[in-house]
Amino acid sequence: MIPQRIIYKDAKLLILDQRLIPYKTKYFLAKTAKDVAFAIKQMMVRGAPLIGDCAAYGYLLGVDEIVKKNIKDKKKLIKILDENAKLIKSSRPTALALFKATNKVHNKAIEYINSDNKFSLFKLREIVKTEVENIIKEDIKSTIEIAKNGIKLLNNNSTIITYCNTGALATAGIGTAFGIISYGYKNKKVKFVYPCETRPYLQGSRLTAWELLKNKIPFSLICDNMAGWLMKTKKIDAVIIGADRIASNGDSANKIGSYSLAILSKYHKIPFYVAAPIDTIDMNIKTGNDIVIEERSSDEVIKIKSQYIADPKTQAYYVAFDVVPNNLITAIITEKGIINNPSYSKIKNILNS
Amino acid sequence: MIPQRIIYKDAKLLILDQRLIPYKTKYFLAKTAKDVAFAIKQMMVRGAPLIGDCAAYGYLLGVDEIVKKNIKDKKKLIKILDENAKLIKSSRPTALALFKATNKVHNKAIEYINSDNKFSLFKLREIVKTEVENIIKEDIKSTIEIAKNGIKLLNNNSTIITYCNTGALATAGIGTAFGIISYGYKNKKVKFVYPCETRPYLQGSRLTAWELLKNKIPFSLICDNMAGWLMKTKKIDAVIIGADRIASNGDSANKIGSYSLAILSKYHKIPFYVAAPIDTIDMNIKTGNDIVIEERSSDEVIKIKSQYIADPKTQAYYVAFDVVPNNLITAIITEKGIINNPSYSKIKNILNS
Repeated sequence: MIPQRIIYKDAKLLILDQRLIPYKTKYFLAKTAKDVAFAIKQMMVRGAPLIGDCAAYGYLLGVDEIVKKNIKDKKKLIKILDENAKLIKSSRPTALALFKATNKVHNKAIEYINSDNKFSLFKLREIVKTEVENIIKEDIKSTIEIAKNGIKLLNNNSTIITYCNTGALATAGIGTAFGIISYGYKNKKVKFVYPCETRPYLQGSRLTAWELLKNKIPFSLICDNMAGWLMKTKKIDAVIIGADRIASNGDSANKIGSYSLAILSKYHKIPFYVAAPIDTIDMNIKTGNDIVIEERSSDEVIKIKSQYIADPKTQAYYVAFDVVPNNLITAIITEKGIINNPSYSKIKNILNS
Repeated sequence: MIPQRIIYKDAKLLILDQRLIPYKTKYFLAKTAKDVAFAIKQMMVRGAPLIGDCAAYGYLLGVDEIVKKNIKDKKKLIKILDENAKLIKSSRPTALALFKATNKVHNKAIEYINSDNKFSLFKLREIVKTEVENIIKEDIKSTIEIAKNGIKLLNNNSTIITYCNTGALATAGIGTAFGIISYGYKNKKVKFVYPCETRPYLQGSRLTAWELLKNKIPFSLICDNMAGWLMKTKKIDAVIIGADRIASNGDSANKIGSYSLAILSKYHKIPFYVAAPIDTIDMNIKTGNDIVIEERSSDEVIKIKSQYIADPKTQAYYVAFDVVPNNLITAIITEKGIINNPSYSKIKNILNS
């Protein structure tokens, strides 16, 4: 079984440190919103939906601090909550779930504080906690619906290439792209999986391979650079990946390398699917060009587990995400349904359905 | 300066152990043909031309052993030499230079033994040594000619993506694709380089980045999966790679990932060049489908420097090379000239020129 990714108890949040998976199961103890922002920034927790879940809990920890300090002055309170929300949202720029989840709980809190009700810190905490729990429940439920929708697109005994980690470790549920794979395996839709190792953070080899082992799903790990040759020389039925943010026209930001994989799929006429909860869609942006792409430290490319794999003087360029344009996406798979050949109007329709 | 890759002295061959670059400069001491085959198999020495050079010296070590044992019986002699040649050639399957170099020295030796001359072991060794030295000289000379031809294809101040290591570490000279880059930098044809790290063996980050540092050429290392996004978001003027074997129609086998890179180049309308000495061309095979592609151990994917980067139970698929079909190659750059839009007839013409 995959260990619990986040455990909230007694105004503390235990966050599974995914940087240590599969070597060690160790939790980071977060006591404040700041601790949670730190954990997200350091990539102890990753995967767009789980980042959202974690952010929401981070906000709750902030409220717990307020309760502890018994800060009742509304102005002061709102200032702290605003700062906490801002701090959490500044931890990473690309995953939309981080912003949506934080805004959801923050809006609930502010709405309550500004309401005419007899205000109490106890009630504020209750409201925030309930909203956080709703976010988690929604995450879990949507992964199951995504899986059910996704397997409709697969023939029996399919061989799948997947990218990064989109499994239980990336969500509170069974995962997005990985959820389709594991649910598909149980339903004889999936026979074999090629996870890409996903450099430099190795989410594929460290996390997805580990989840495949735990789920007893047959697979062979590949280096990212092998995907094209595999498409040419083996029978690959589909490529399924997740998304960190989807523009209103369907352009999808995901882990760096997704764009290349989409071009390779197109070239080999292999369906390319993006699986993500509706909350990944950002209707405020027109195309992928407007998605902020995170750049991270050169050291994350030239070091693995604190060991250098290049001359330490080497400068590396590490862009952490890229954008797959909608014309390279066969379908986006959401909990609300499948969006074939995604476009603005189709996405608008499904959001309004 | 790049240290000498192979040093022959007193019937011994020192082979720079490239697995330790850039961490350590350490030589493996080879005393026999078997030692050399081992060093090639273990990838202490790599890069198609240098593998050929090393193989030739391995053969010479075999002759040195014969001289030492004073084996003069021609039948016995030929049997040992046949076995040595076979052993060396069995060390790796894809690089053609390994076979061509070994066959060259072996044919010279057998020719001399079978001739009517007054046979002497001393003379045999002289003949073999001269042939080995010719191979090395030829390698060095061809890298310079390739560089001179290659830069004709580049505009001033070009930004280049390259793959694997094709530099001094892959040849006895200045390199093939890398030779064009370093010579181009000196001649203001090249301004900036993006070497791909080249998983799993990391020839790009360990070796090419190191050679770029030593040559003071501005560069940023990238993970292999970033090449596509880079082509979309930065101005990339050309992709230049090496080759391990080229079929008579121009299909080119090279380090795994080259095929994907070629498709990405085509998609972005970026010229894709293969730089290799004429001896890389195998006129005995019609197309890339006939090139033997080496598969290597799963462990080489899931371990880096003896540390696991995945659960040790993980099975990985490691195909070490792939084939870029001629229709994805803008030109093949050889010491004898440039072959635009390579085809059987064009390759035959240049070989006969």
